[in-house]
Amino acid sequence: MKRVNAGIIGLGRAGFMHLQNLLTIPEINILQVSDVFIDNISDKLNDLGITNQTKDYHDLLNNPDIDTIFVFTSTDTHEEIVTACANAGKNIFCEKPLSMSLDEEASLDVLRAVKKANVKLQVGFNRRMDPQFRNIYENVRNGAIGDPQVVKITSRDPDLLPHDLIKRIGGLLFDFTMHDFDMARYMMNSNITEVYAKGGTLIDPTLKEINDIDTLALVLQFENGAYGLIDNSRRAVYGYDQRVEVFGSEGMLKAENVNNSTVELYNKNHESLKKPLPMFVQRYHDAYINEMKMFVDSLLNDKPVVASGKDVIMAQRAAIAAQKSIETGLPQKVDTDFSL
Amino acid sequence: MKRVNAGIIGLGRAGFMHLQNLLTIPEINILQVSDVFIDNISDKLNDLGITNQTKDYHDLLNNPDIDTIFVFTSTDTHEEIVTACANAGKNIFCEKPLSMSLDEEASLDVLRAVKKANVKLQVGFNRRMDPQFRNIYENVRNGAIGDPQVVKITSRDPDLLPHDLIKRIGGLLFDFTMHDFDMARYMMNSNITEVYAKGGTLIDPTLKEINDIDTLALVLQFENGAYGLIDNSRRAVYGYDQRVEVFGSEGMLKAENVNNSTVELYNKNHESLKKPLPMFVQRYHDAYINEMKMFVDSLLNDKPVVASGKDVIMAQRAAIAAQKSIETGLPQKVDTDFSL
Amino acid sequence: MKRVNAGIIGLGRAGFMHLQNLLTIPEINILQVSDVFIDNISDKLNDLGITNQTKDYHDLLNNPDIDTIFVFTSTDTHEEIVTACANAGKNIFCEKPLSMSLDEEASLDVLRAVKKANVKLQVGFNRRMDPQFRNIYENVRNGAIGDPQVVKITSRDPDLLPHDLIKRIGGLLFDFTMHDFDMARYMMNSNITEVYAKGGTLIDPTLKEINDIDTLALVLQFENGAYGLIDNSRRAVYGYDQRVEVFGSEGMLKAENVNNSTVELYNKNHESLKKPLPMFVQRYHDAYINEMKMFVDSLLNDKPVVASGKDVIMAQRAAIAAQKSIETGLPQKVDTDFSL
Amino acid sequence: MKRVNAGIIGLGRAGFMHLQNLLTIPEINILQVSDVFIDNISDKLNDLGITNQTKDYHDLLNNPDIDTIFVFTSTDTHEEIVTACANAGKNIFCEKPLSMSLDEEASLDVLRAVKKANVKLQVGFNRRMDPQFRNIYENVRNGAIGDPQVVKITSRDPDLLPHDLIKRIGGLLFDFTMHDFDMARYMMNSNITEVYAKGGTLIDPTLKEINDIDTLALVLQFENGAYGLIDNSRRAVYGYDQRVEVFGSEGMLKAENVNNSTVELYNKNHESLKKPLPMFVQRYHDAYINEMKMFVDSLLNDKPVVASGKDVIMAQRAAIAAQKSIETGLPQKVDTDFSL
Repeated sequence: MKRVNAGIIGLGRAGFMHLQNLLTIPEINILQVSDVFIDNISDKLNDLGITNQTKDYHDLLNNPDIDTIFVFTSTDTHEEIVTACANAGKNIFCEKPLSMSLDEEASLDVLRAVKKANVKLQVGFNRRMDPQFRNIYENVRNGAIGDPQVVKITSRDPDLLPHDLIKRIGGLLFDFTMHDFDMARYMMNSNITEVYAKGGTLIDPTLKEINDIDTLALVLQFENGAYGLIDNSRRAVYGYDQRVEVFGSEGMLKAENVNNSTVELYNKNHESLKKPLPMFVQRYHDAYINEMKMFVDSLLNDKPVVASGKDVIMAQRAAIAAQKSIETGLPQKVDTDFSL
Repeated sequence: MKRVNAGIIGLGRAGFMHLQNLLTIPEINILQVSDVFIDNISDKLNDLGITNQTKDYHDLLNNPDIDTIFVFTSTDTHEEIVTACANAGKNIFCEKPLSMSLDEEASLDVLRAVKKANVKLQVGFNRRMDPQFRNIYENVRNGAIGDPQVVKITSRDPDLLPHDLIKRIGGLLFDFTMHDFDMARYMMNSNITEVYAKGGTLIDPTLKEINDIDTLALVLQFENGAYGLIDNSRRAVYGYDQRVEVFGSEGMLKAENVNNSTVELYNKNHESLKKPLPMFVQRYHDAYINEMKMFVDSLLNDKPVVASGKDVIMAQRAAIAAQKSIETGLPQKVDTDFSL
Repeated sequence: MKRVNAGIIGLGRAGFMHLQNLLTIPEINILQVSDVFIDNISDKLNDLGITNQTKDYHDLLNNPDIDTIFVFTSTDTHEEIVTACANAGKNIFCEKPLSMSLDEEASLDVLRAVKKANVKLQVGFNRRMDPQFRNIYENVRNGAIGDPQVVKITSRDPDLLPHDLIKRIGGLLFDFTMHDFDMARYMMNSNITEVYAKGGTLIDPTLKEINDIDTLALVLQFENGAYGLIDNSRRAVYGYDQRVEVFGSEGMLKAENVNNSTVELYNKNHESLKKPLPMFVQRYHDAYINEMKMFVDSLLNDKPVVASGKDVIMAQRAAIAAQKSIETGLPQKVDTDFSL
Repeated sequence: MKRVNAGIIGLGRAGFMHLQNLLTIPEINILQVSDVFIDNISDKLNDLGITNQTKDYHDLLNNPDIDTIFVFTSTDTHEEIVTACANAGKNIFCEKPLSMSLDEEASLDVLRAVKKANVKLQVGFNRRMDPQFRNIYENVRNGAIGDPQVVKITSRDPDLLPHDLIKRIGGLLFDFTMHDFDMARYMMNSNITEVYAKGGTLIDPTLKEINDIDTLALVLQFENGAYGLIDNSRRAVYGYDQRVEVFGSEGMLKAENVNNSTVELYNKNHESLKKPLPMFVQRYHDAYINEMKMFVDSLLNDKPVVASGKDVIMAQRAAIAAQKSIETGLPQKVDTDFSL
């Protein structure tokens, strides 16, 4: 069996979840892991049989047995670490975005290093690999609904995030809507050329202090002539809500929100059972595993990655355009040219 | 039993459907009907026991026993006939719009005549009385979802209309989206203050010749701070598609498209049964009857009508703004002041 | 237009509902009606334009213009009136059963009179014409699920009936399950050959005093080798519940209970909207109209009726077998021979 | 962390699936495994880090570090191995049944050994721990539907099994319906007192040669007065079909068949997407893991097991009664007394 010899950088909450997923994929051989707070989780790692641990991620770069590195550190380190991994000749999996800077050049520099090193880089647009959305994607590609004309995405979080977390990971547009921009572009197989966005603080007015919003409605224009509609909210009291619909010349595909319970209660008051919806970790559990499996497939069989650096840049441009649109009250063009 | 003594002007296809509905409402007493081609349908009317027939609608105006007139003639006659009915002191039910002219003054003149005559006028925004949408409306009013923040409307026709029919009844924005503008405003209980629309001919490019479009995506801003999203298509190959969703601070209400069959087929090929969706006549059958019943209730018990002349003006302003937005590529403000 | 010249006997609550349905069918011409308490409803009938009214149903028998009589009187009069109608040479629509007597001979005598007079008789198994169940029936006939192997029927009433009403119309097996026996046989297109039934008073023990039950579970054997399962309850607190499932060698067809609302509420408590289910009058509204339309079609185009006297006898035999099975604790054979 | 020190006997297809599930439960420490064909899977086991392997299950009995043994061998060995495990003082998890013999005494002897050794024994009624059915179970217990009056179970396999496999694992009643008997009794929290069953070979007549059936419909009587209905088929062409419904004095709970896709396709032909249903391994994946977790909880916290030896005996008695009922054409009593 061909295997990926892997290292992991960053084992915080998200990193540890990814680690557990990686352990279920037999083609992945985890040789070494690093975290700045490695002592805190050393025992847990030993229990899992992962004994080659280090505080310094450079140890992984210098480990000649490692061919691939999974980067799960916080966003502000991506620029440095991904570049270093590329320079060390390692394939890279990294969460989006590639840089905290809204100036695209910082991200492009990272991608240039990846290109120069001729390594593979996959980014964490995991929803592309969600079984429901992937099903729609494949059916759209197979022509099940003819030419796609309108894509509609509803994406709502169960509750507000703390302000300091938002400062670290980015506001609604850059942390949350980013996924929807990518999903819209992925479903349509066409670049976004224009964004018009309305957004505000309908839930928490204090978000204005950190230049963020909690509610968003926007219209997209695609290069192929089609349109898109996205709506976001930071607080759906009923739970995480993720839906996609693609309408075309020969039909419509739509994925309703996921709730795995099929149990129905009928009583005098016509009340239904409480059906708490899954949070993103459960909702996209399969997607998280699938993105790793597809990355492994890209590495072992030399196929293109399912979500590339270019995909991040394109989603980021849409987010920046949306922010400008909200600020100016005017629609904003999105550049579709891309070269390194 | 108190009864409405009614006359009907216009018995084409739509008029005849309304007539059949009116016959099922015991409080309505049809005294006289008129149509310019009355001879063609005279026998059918006699079969229904309606023998007082005339070619000239003025006969109804002059009939002192008639207190209420239902106007089902083509749009280009509304301005003249509704004004004449008002001047004759009759209560009026009329399909929207009140005038073919995009210049609002023509419609306002009609409403001024109605106001001066102190009669009741109800317009045909029948979807307000659709049981599904009315259910959502009432629950929103009752606070079931807290403060409404986003309304989403999907409205798709099964197929393109002939160009000459479009010329008579108006293009997509004025004939079709008009209902959605009204529905959005009705659900939100707040005026539309801004429209940004993207529209084009993704299905039939020849529509450009008559200045119409077949596909539309738009964002609304409401006076209360909330947002709206509407998408339209003239050709949903799977059938008529009418959905409304309202999201708020305490929950979400949504009405899926209507299909009355509960029969499911499971077989080797996982094929489902053919479930042709209803056309608008069937889909809104109850709504058509309910709007008449509510009008009767307004007349007999002196209550406000459920859809007023002002409501038409407001929806029309949104449609005009949408057209300008498509033409200019810029968002358009919508005036919310209204006085006669 | 060919028309049915009809008389109606019996205008109690059920009869009046049927009358209103008959008025919507243009091929039916109501010439005369009778009821022993005709004075009580004379005004209402006049309002509907039905002025030829009588207390004595013999007047209808003697009316040479009438070719068809609808019998909506109470069960204990069916034997006498249907026989008299047949002897007068009139086609007959009558609610099941044809006789209060459990001795089949009384019913057979009625059918012999019908046969001798060579008139048409349709009985009121209206559920055969319910759009949902008819859809299943037609798909089974078309081979959509191959050879039918198991039919499952769930039929539950919203609440207990008064004891004195039960005494007049028959207990659970003869008033309620009767429809399910007919539905099972209709779906399978095969006679019932054996019944094993368990039944008791799980809801109202005082039903024992009038020899009735409120809860029933039974297994059927069909002549074609297939099986059936029926369960009944007199009190489903959530409302009227009517479901049918047919399983076969090539698939399954199933009709879930009918609720016309598509509105969904999602909130903090995951509570759904109250969705009161329709009572039988609403649930089978279309079925009641359809059975009349099909009867008209049988009369005007000389086709077999959709539910015949034999069908009543067959369902009754199953009910009698079920009662014996409950009493003896043993399965009971059902005779499938039928000749007059 | 308290842990279970476990051994595994039997690593065929089912055993290996269970092993993989056990590896995901941190409280389980697998010390040693045995299989008569251990050489065939030795490499796979080493890959999983399980190096203490043996051909002879007695090695596990003699291993003083092992406190609990999971028995996944074929049914004909259960009697011997479970007894030996008990005599060696080990807690035991074992698939049902405990003996191939229809004479209950053989199973009772096994349970007596378990009782004498004062160890815990859990049997593999995994469906009790299926999230859907467990949800119903808990709601029934919580009184959500008042007094349960009727339980309905539909259980259908996707296709016929080979005759030689049936000979080894038992026919429909003892291998398949067994689970439904247990589920019915579990949901009702009451013993089955009578069974009336109809069964035959509607799919494969050659099953008669090995005294088996492929289609089954039956009625149950419970000790608490309630009724049950079960229907089985060996070949549902649309896939594995597992449904449970419990009806009571205050409402109904029902679990529809599980299909995890929420994607819907609407097109011209009203065709839906192919949605292959999961086979039992996927359908009950969570149930398989949950039953192990609950067993661990019983062991570490000294709680009663969720499915006991008595539960197997009771389901087996129902299966035997069903077989006699089919053979004799008569309902059969089921003994509810149980003592060792």
